[in-house]
Amino acid sequence: MAYFEGVKQVQFEGADSNNPLAFRYYNPAEVINGKTAEEWLRFSVAYWHTFTADGTDPFGVGTAIRPWDQFKGMDLAKARVDAAFELFEKLDVPFFCFHDVDIAPEGSNLKETNENQDIIVNMIQEYMKTSKVKLLWNTANMFTHPRYVHGAATTSNADVFAYSAAKVKKALEVAKQLGAENYVFWGGREGYETLLNTDMKLEQDNLARFFHMAKDYAKEIGFNGQFLIEPKPKEPTKHQYDFDVATGLAFLQKYDLQDTFKFNVEANHATLAGHTFEHELRVARINGMLGSVDANQGDTLLGWDTDEFPTDLYSATLAMYEILKNDGLGSGGLNFDAKVRRGSFEPEDLFHAHIAGMDCFAIGLKVANKLIEDRVLDAFIEDRYSSYTRGIGLDIVEGKTDFHALEAYAYQLGDIKNQSGRQERLKATVNRYIIETLSSVTV
Amino acid sequence: MAYFEGVKQVQFEGADSNNPLAFRYYNPAEVINGKTAEEWLRFSVAYWHTFTADGTDPFGVGTAIRPWDQFKGMDLAKARVDAAFELFEKLDVPFFCFHDVDIAPEGSNLKETNENQDIIVNMIQEYMKTSKVKLLWNTANMFTHPRYVHGAATTSNADVFAYSAAKVKKALEVAKQLGAENYVFWGGREGYETLLNTDMKLEQDNLARFFHMAKDYAKEIGFNGQFLIEPKPKEPTKHQYDFDVATGLAFLQKYDLQDTFKFNVEANHATLAGHTFEHELRVARINGMLGSVDANQGDTLLGWDTDEFPTDLYSATLAMYEILKNDGLGSGGLNFDAKVRRGSFEPEDLFHAHIAGMDCFAIGLKVANKLIEDRVLDAFIEDRYSSYTRGIGLDIVEGKTDFHALEAYAYQLGDIKNQSGRQERLKATVNRYIIETLSSVTV
Amino acid sequence: MAYFEGVKQVQFEGADSNNPLAFRYYNPAEVINGKTAEEWLRFSVAYWHTFTADGTDPFGVGTAIRPWDQFKGMDLAKARVDAAFELFEKLDVPFFCFHDVDIAPEGSNLKETNENQDIIVNMIQEYMKTSKVKLLWNTANMFTHPRYVHGAATTSNADVFAYSAAKVKKALEVAKQLGAENYVFWGGREGYETLLNTDMKLEQDNLARFFHMAKDYAKEIGFNGQFLIEPKPKEPTKHQYDFDVATGLAFLQKYDLQDTFKFNVEANHATLAGHTFEHELRVARINGMLGSVDANQGDTLLGWDTDEFPTDLYSATLAMYEILKNDGLGSGGLNFDAKVRRGSFEPEDLFHAHIAGMDCFAIGLKVANKLIEDRVLDAFIEDRYSSYTRGIGLDIVEGKTDFHALEAYAYQLGDIKNQSGRQERLKATVNRYIIETLSSVTV
Amino acid sequence: MAYFEGVKQVQFEGADSNNPLAFRYYNPAEVINGKTAEEWLRFSVAYWHTFTADGTDPFGVGTAIRPWDQFKGMDLAKARVDAAFELFEKLDVPFFCFHDVDIAPEGSNLKETNENQDIIVNMIQEYMKTSKVKLLWNTANMFTHPRYVHGAATTSNADVFAYSAAKVKKALEVAKQLGAENYVFWGGREGYETLLNTDMKLEQDNLARFFHMAKDYAKEIGFNGQFLIEPKPKEPTKHQYDFDVATGLAFLQKYDLQDTFKFNVEANHATLAGHTFEHELRVARINGMLGSVDANQGDTLLGWDTDEFPTDLYSATLAMYEILKNDGLGSGGLNFDAKVRRGSFEPEDLFHAHIAGMDCFAIGLKVANKLIEDRVLDAFIEDRYSSYTRGIGLDIVEGKTDFHALEAYAYQLGDIKNQSGRQERLKATVNRYIIETLSSVTV
Repeated sequence: MAYFEGVKQVQFEGADSNNPLAFRYYNPAEVINGKTAEEWLRFSVAYWHTFTADGTDPFGVGTAIRPWDQFKGMDLAKARVDAAFELFEKLDVPFFCFHDVDIAPEGSNLKETNENQDIIVNMIQEYMKTSKVKLLWNTANMFTHPRYVHGAATTSNADVFAYSAAKVKKALEVAKQLGAENYVFWGGREGYETLLNTDMKLEQDNLARFFHMAKDYAKEIGFNGQFLIEPKPKEPTKHQYDFDVATGLAFLQKYDLQDTFKFNVEANHATLAGHTFEHELRVARINGMLGSVDANQGDTLLGWDTDEFPTDLYSATLAMYEILKNDGLGSGGLNFDAKVRRGSFEPEDLFHAHIAGMDCFAIGLKVANKLIEDRVLDAFIEDRYSSYTRGIGLDIVEGKTDFHALEAYAYQLGDIKNQSGRQERLKATVNRYIIETLSSVTV
Repeated sequence: MAYFEGVKQVQFEGADSNNPLAFRYYNPAEVINGKTAEEWLRFSVAYWHTFTADGTDPFGVGTAIRPWDQFKGMDLAKARVDAAFELFEKLDVPFFCFHDVDIAPEGSNLKETNENQDIIVNMIQEYMKTSKVKLLWNTANMFTHPRYVHGAATTSNADVFAYSAAKVKKALEVAKQLGAENYVFWGGREGYETLLNTDMKLEQDNLARFFHMAKDYAKEIGFNGQFLIEPKPKEPTKHQYDFDVATGLAFLQKYDLQDTFKFNVEANHATLAGHTFEHELRVARINGMLGSVDANQGDTLLGWDTDEFPTDLYSATLAMYEILKNDGLGSGGLNFDAKVRRGSFEPEDLFHAHIAGMDCFAIGLKVANKLIEDRVLDAFIEDRYSSYTRGIGLDIVEGKTDFHALEAYAYQLGDIKNQSGRQERLKATVNRYIIETLSSVTV
Repeated sequence: MAYFEGVKQVQFEGADSNNPLAFRYYNPAEVINGKTAEEWLRFSVAYWHTFTADGTDPFGVGTAIRPWDQFKGMDLAKARVDAAFELFEKLDVPFFCFHDVDIAPEGSNLKETNENQDIIVNMIQEYMKTSKVKLLWNTANMFTHPRYVHGAATTSNADVFAYSAAKVKKALEVAKQLGAENYVFWGGREGYETLLNTDMKLEQDNLARFFHMAKDYAKEIGFNGQFLIEPKPKEPTKHQYDFDVATGLAFLQKYDLQDTFKFNVEANHATLAGHTFEHELRVARINGMLGSVDANQGDTLLGWDTDEFPTDLYSATLAMYEILKNDGLGSGGLNFDAKVRRGSFEPEDLFHAHIAGMDCFAIGLKVANKLIEDRVLDAFIEDRYSSYTRGIGLDIVEGKTDFHALEAYAYQLGDIKNQSGRQERLKATVNRYIIETLSSVTV
Repeated sequence: MAYFEGVKQVQFEGADSNNPLAFRYYNPAEVINGKTAEEWLRFSVAYWHTFTADGTDPFGVGTAIRPWDQFKGMDLAKARVDAAFELFEKLDVPFFCFHDVDIAPEGSNLKETNENQDIIVNMIQEYMKTSKVKLLWNTANMFTHPRYVHGAATTSNADVFAYSAAKVKKALEVAKQLGAENYVFWGGREGYETLLNTDMKLEQDNLARFFHMAKDYAKEIGFNGQFLIEPKPKEPTKHQYDFDVATGLAFLQKYDLQDTFKFNVEANHATLAGHTFEHELRVARINGMLGSVDANQGDTLLGWDTDEFPTDLYSATLAMYEILKNDGLGSGGLNFDAKVRRGSFEPEDLFHAHIAGMDCFAIGLKVANKLIEDRVLDAFIEDRYSSYTRGIGLDIVEGKTDFHALEAYAYQLGDIKNQSGRQERLKATVNRYIIETLSSVTV
């Protein structure tokens, strides 16, 4: 049975195509700087937004019309798997991601929940035998159920901590079974609502204990996927402990976990923390911690996580710039942690949205690659910092100087001459590359 | 004497030019939908940012290196006029704007101040005889001097109100003398710091009284330029009375001034108020109040007015969309109320910045025009609201129904069927037009 | 049957009480400036937050434990009415508010929905015969159901407009039946998600048509309650048309509705719009449009509507200051549009939360009243603006001057002398009143 | 000569005093939990805001009227020292803080600048021989002068790095000479404007090199004061590297500087980073890094650093709660990094503002101390986390368990029972303590 009957295989048809259900810019086979677009971009569909979300928002119930709406319970879970692999193949995406609760309903107790999950995991595994699609990462949802009201690993209730451990244990086993390339921790309830009732130190110590146990268990079962922390500053809680990449770095170093984790950077979480997407990618990159990406976008005039499909060419270009400079994402990928708008409730919108996002990042890849090939930013930056490649600057960088020598040097300086940072010209250059890279490619 | 010796006449050289001091996209003579690009865009240079600002910020003094730095007092004022007309001509912009204090220093009293101003105004008038550049608007700066600490027309001190009236009186005379096409009121201190010491009603009543007197005086002297209010929500004050376009509309209606004023919409002020630039333009447009534009951009992750030169193609496209739908700006224009970054302190950056902004809006014009020509948004919207062109919908719009009839109609309705808003696809369409409009134009 | 068995009648026990389920500051019978505290404060319980909300948030399902959890459908609706009147009486609040869907479930069609509602409305009416509690306002929920995905009165679908009309028609009839003192319009979906697909002018014209029909129908059935618009800038939509009080004023004036409506000002909506609560109250007050108040508070470091119970003494004091200056709220009241935190999921928390809010506003009332009695702010303000009571200032206020006379006056002015706004001292004064007003009352 | 002739010694006069130039709540000699209020609070005056700032803002020049306005150059510098010690003594504050450029003007070269500084430092040292006031900290201003346009230790120009080193070298010598208890680094320009031109890794490596050299030099000259980093997320730059305490922690750990530094936490910088003041204090405290405090407040509805004098009793109470839990600030203090509003331009406002701030923190100290004495929060928290003191919870905390054991435990769990976080009741409790602590003290 086909769930998306009206939608044919989505194919690259080039910029001139007027088929709204075709890629105009994403050509998976196109070779760019030694790898195909598919290899660079490693697109992933987020199971939750595309197969379980229904458009509910804080002021309204679901609007989504989905071809699996007639099913319930485990039948619904199975129908979604069928629909998912149909969509994966029609979009030709190489990866997907899920939370445990996305794929199978909770049972009346942990055992039943795990049994439900096993049934669906086995079904997925069966599909994966013949599909090229792989599991980018999975995770345990430890935020939706009321038991996590005060947190999971940072809960005030030791029973919940134990329950959470059991959930992650199972999720790691599933990761192993399905060959997940990564395992993600997003601490949606790992934070606080008010300091008035919170023992922040105990909570963070417990979070570290939890991570160490997870690490030990992964090693025990031979799961070698990359562990990823996904920072978010707030929402649903007042404050989440993994506020941003830098905060995560502080935590990982303090608790000797920096070799165990990398970061899964999400665009919209970056902006909620007051950063650009590319800032968070850069911070992760220069610390050797850029693991994977949740490719979406927020609305900086709104204060919540809108998880929109990425269509901003600036953001995609600057993100791909960091990713190319990182020589790709390794085992990570570009996961569309993005949902169709509540008003885009038709099944077809799922395709429009993914196509929009995939084309956007394909453009970003090409523009960023051209910027790097032409060395327009690199050359500017090399020149800008060139004083550190000689004389006193080289001494500074090589650790061969001290305040005495620097003061002596400063005393003999006349007027110091700086050079312009040329921000306006550099921004115009980015515009030029956005406007012209594709036209040269596509004509 | 040339102030910008290193810079030749900036010309349209097309997309392939590698000359950083050329227009790649702005071709003033290009005819688009019946008017030239120059006529649609009506670019204006802001005297204050380009000729008097020096890069001072709240934590640092000026960094700008300007070829007129050696002058003082009235000599400086004259040198700036010379430099300004050199820059206007080298950029070939048709308009400029200024505050009274930008062009001439204050004297030790009002008489001297006005005399200083007259000298420079006459010098400008002389230049304008042979230059094509016109005065888009002028205004009186009533926020910098300490006397305006508690406001100008909304001050708690009647002496300051009187002084402000004298300033605007003079500024209107200057507007008349120089043939200004508009006169702008930006109320930078017309607001409050704390309600604890503020009589908001008296202050707003006085503002209205002030505006009525200004209107009467303009009529008396035969100044026919358009009066414009420039909304801004805050900064420098905690709250400014002209918060946004809607707030301005409420005020103008209340005080019977809606036929006297239009709005000068600024991009960065829009975002500080929590709106997009295009939102403010739309609100002004559908109320017949879109007068002119301060073309700049802010950084939505920063909470102050950054007044950056506009380089965002989305913002420029959507702004030009509103302006084209408005059939242009009438007597208004696109004034670059934008300053080079503090780190872009070399004279050349003034050109890079204006070129970046002019090219950006030229792209925006072409993309928006193509969107309109192809009717991609119009057709979608017409279809979306088509139920109002027939049956009950037409009755609603024509005022031929009431709650009884509507209830009767609702009772017989089965399930109501809505259609998708297609936001993702529409955003992908805008990307397509940005990527492809120029390539088709320039190849 | 008692739903809150563990909770006795909540009574005023004074500041020394250690009973957490007692009022320490709210003494309903206490006479303050000629009216009782109960008469000034006119507290109201919001049916939705207290009887139907369950702690669901965008990342988690309900956590609330409620004594009516065992019921379903109409039985649940009835149990909630019983529980509601028990809580109203135990808290001794004089008012409550509801949306149509709060009190009764929707049926399979409009007729059934209305029948369900009639049953519960009759039950409520029965309760009201013997209870002192009155209906502050009711409203029609036109945002939760998928049919309103693109708006209600501003929908792109005329069928939805008609359906919405039927809903408001019914809600006005209920208002009439239960003697509601006001009727509220909150346009949660009356706005847009993206301008790309929006005809803003048609939508706003239709909203005005809708309001005029509502006005006509209220007149027809003899419902004399005050119509109220509740502004909110955004959430759930990207932009809501009733952004803030000033925006509402612009709309009402444009469409000749300013005599039909007042505003229901909500604290958290004010802060989402970038304003303080007291600012919105002030704007409404000086325009004669302050109708009622949604008494809650937001978290200005979070970007969404948190609807917390009000506990901020500054906010309560400054709100009550405006309300006292307005000589009370007329037919309006202080409605706790506030929800217990998701982590405060026990029934007892409903009482803690209301007590916290009622005590907070009772403190605010007393502090504000003392500030007014002692004329500490009034005297400062009178002195500050005293220049408008004589000479040129009086001429300005009385409209007896013009730019000529003002310029002549300005010419003869020497240095203008302003006086300090004394913000720091005034803020310290407010602290003093908060610290000391109650101690003098309670000792 | 007295600069503040109209102001007498400011004294504690108690809550009933109507003298606006008296302390009503700050009684320096009052013993609270074993130390005097003066010892707990360690108030400090910020030289820059009180003696050199003039009310300039981005849209206006200075408004401040200061009794030393008639002086210029070194005479002005000396007059300010005289005025400063007069104010310190009249307010009876135990500490002050300064940047190098606050106390003496820059000369035409580094040598002259240092000579100017020596003259004033010697003058200050002379005053300190007979005054009880001590230097809480000093620092080098490396953000105002144009040479720092691209940063100081993170500049792209090695000459500027060297110059900055010379500045800090001198500042450490001054710190040693004047017995400063701490030395502060605020990196106002240590960040970036755009990633397009920035080598973030080199800049951060250089910052670490700079700090290590500073540490070495302090050791060499025997300066034993505490090194402090003052985080700020942005402003003046787009992004500052010391974004918040957590970001600082990540940096210090990475570069092996965590034993060399603590944090100087500023309230307004906390809110600009999206945190509460108490959050930043808590994070610093539980990491053993709470060094000192810049006691001011921001306006969370404004997006820039307003540096207001602290008058918010909630903020002061929760800050003092963290400080008391930290057993005080050690060598740190409460520095009023706060400026009088531009509209509060009279000399007397400097006293009103400091009195407002000192009274506010004195109230905060008393309320926080009472909260701790009564164990109202501690008892709640102990109970809330009590499951970690026994059974599986104790095993978790003691590191005696793993995922196997926790899963086994989880399997046998029935429904997990959480308890309410009681946020509303805890907030009401804080209100009660604010209202009642002082009345019990002062009556």
